[in-house]
Amino acid sequence: MNTSRLRADEYRDGILKGNRLYLAKAVTLVESTLPADQAIAGELLDMILPEAGKSLRIGITGPPGVGKSTFIEAFGKMIVDAGKKVAVLTIDPSSQVTGGSILGDKTRMDTLARSPHAFIRPSPSGYALGGVTAHTRESILLCEAAGFDIVIVETVGTGQSEISVKSMVDFFLLLIQPGSGDELQGIKKGIVEMADAIVVTKADGDNVSAARATQAEYQHALHLLKASSSGWQPRVTLCSSISGSGLSEIFDTILAYRDQLTASGHFEHNRRNQYEAWFRDRFQQLLSSDHMGYNDVVAARKKLELDVRSGSISPRRAAQSLLEAYHDAIRGKT
Amino acid sequence: MNTSRLRADEYRDGILKGNRLYLAKAVTLVESTLPADQAIAGELLDMILPEAGKSLRIGITGPPGVGKSTFIEAFGKMIVDAGKKVAVLTIDPSSQVTGGSILGDKTRMDTLARSPHAFIRPSPSGYALGGVTAHTRESILLCEAAGFDIVIVETVGTGQSEISVKSMVDFFLLLIQPGSGDELQGIKKGIVEMADAIVVTKADGDNVSAARATQAEYQHALHLLKASSSGWQPRVTLCSSISGSGLSEIFDTILAYRDQLTASGHFEHNRRNQYEAWFRDRFQQLLSSDHMGYNDVVAARKKLELDVRSGSISPRRAAQSLLEAYHDAIRGKT
Repeated sequence: MNTSRLRADEYRDGILKGNRLYLAKAVTLVESTLPADQAIAGELLDMILPEAGKSLRIGITGPPGVGKSTFIEAFGKMIVDAGKKVAVLTIDPSSQVTGGSILGDKTRMDTLARSPHAFIRPSPSGYALGGVTAHTRESILLCEAAGFDIVIVETVGTGQSEISVKSMVDFFLLLIQPGSGDELQGIKKGIVEMADAIVVTKADGDNVSAARATQAEYQHALHLLKASSSGWQPRVTLCSSISGSGLSEIFDTILAYRDQLTASGHFEHNRRNQYEAWFRDRFQQLLSSDHMGYNDVVAARKKLELDVRSGSISPRRAAQSLLEAYHDAIRGKT
Repeated sequence: MNTSRLRADEYRDGILKGNRLYLAKAVTLVESTLPADQAIAGELLDMILPEAGKSLRIGITGPPGVGKSTFIEAFGKMIVDAGKKVAVLTIDPSSQVTGGSILGDKTRMDTLARSPHAFIRPSPSGYALGGVTAHTRESILLCEAAGFDIVIVETVGTGQSEISVKSMVDFFLLLIQPGSGDELQGIKKGIVEMADAIVVTKADGDNVSAARATQAEYQHALHLLKASSSGWQPRVTLCSSISGSGLSEIFDTILAYRDQLTASGHFEHNRRNQYEAWFRDRFQQLLSSDHMGYNDVVAARKKLELDVRSGSISPRRAAQSLLEAYHDAIRGKT
């Protein structure tokens, strides 16, 4: 680890040994925008692909104040205590605005972070959601190659980021707190429909009866929704991150889900669909930016923008003209 | 008009004479996906571009049941009675699902539709929102070339379609009904923030006091929002489509807006930004679909999708490989 940039096989060897420093460096590599890093990252991902895919991928979301970090710390510790390795990745597009992720504050999960069987990684900063999503997908594969049994992807709820997380995990868990109504909690209806399980947090002390009422309310709401094509019926359970009650029940639910969907083939089918969608997204991303790699196309684009603004060419015609400039550049006509 | 496909200059001549049959045929041409039609449409749009841009473009939205059609009929009739020509276009992405637009039911605006100074056109069916948006933008230009003074773009509110309409109009009007709270009315906060004016409909009979209360509530909400960079302060007014009260006040507000923003240069600046955004959107659309025009790329894509699904190649590598196949196809290497 003396040079900052290693060869792909050096990263691979470190990762396959379960070395968390190599894993952390590889995640940084994948997040890098430098072409040299990107080339090595591509090589590395192809190398570790046969070793990836073996974890259970769990997405966790919930409104601010629901206690996500506390829950993940308690839940993660339970998993570690059971002899498994857990990785926690976050999707937090807001980190690009603040310059530092609110979830990136590792001290919020400091007990878990100190465990040699845990790996906690905040969202890459400076990326829009699409970029965060792409990097998180690849980080999941790296964690799996490093032997992590459970990969948790945490998100701070802005609708769109939940959809991204749903598109990369096996199981999607929604945390809510005691209290009534989606609107009060700021949860969008679509998020409830995406959940494979809902957990009412803070079900301890004086909150227990309110938590039970919330549980009943969501159980009723979920029964009104059409069962998913997999046949899985989402469950609503209670937990307390303080006392630890309900945590093992949640894990049992997730394992029951995995067993049921593995038996029916839906588990594998879902993953294959996710890989295909990821491929399509990635190709569209490459397409969108590819033309900016040609100086002549960049110049043509700037000129056409001015022409469009002045009204001397229609946007339709200008777009067609830019596409032709792009084709010419690829053909090497300059 | 004996042949179904005319030459671009024939469409142009008919449109510039204000012939509504030619205008309707030209809108159909623009909506067509046939390459031959698309070529003529591009030619026609470039021809009429110098004659376009002279209307006042008004976007109108509001929750279901607010009385959009009734309002537009009454408002449009007032404009026609004042000696102006009005066109009404709709953005209704739901029409692709039902196979027929709910707004496309012309009988809903039958009085206005019978006027020789009005042109009413439902959303093209069979398109996703992006397609509807592109076609509506071009239809606005055609209506302007045909001499329509006011072009109204109506949308049925699904958040995303309002953003599309906002991106193509000069003035954005939100209709609400007497009653309290955004949530009750199903209006997203972002929509309220986009509005240049809000009109409380159905302010007649027993509703008047409720309408006044709603007016006060929204006036208060708007004062809390930061004024837009143009310096325009959105207004909240009342109207009754039955009695016609408040309609001329709304039109006066729109004219005041136009005068104020024209004087400050914001009106023209906004239009130029919109044209530039339209150009970028159109180029991205062309880019997204261009590779599907090459048989070899289509074949490579299908093969890569299977490879990605089986896990024999990473999505990242597959996307890169497809981009290379696209480049090769453009270069004529097959």
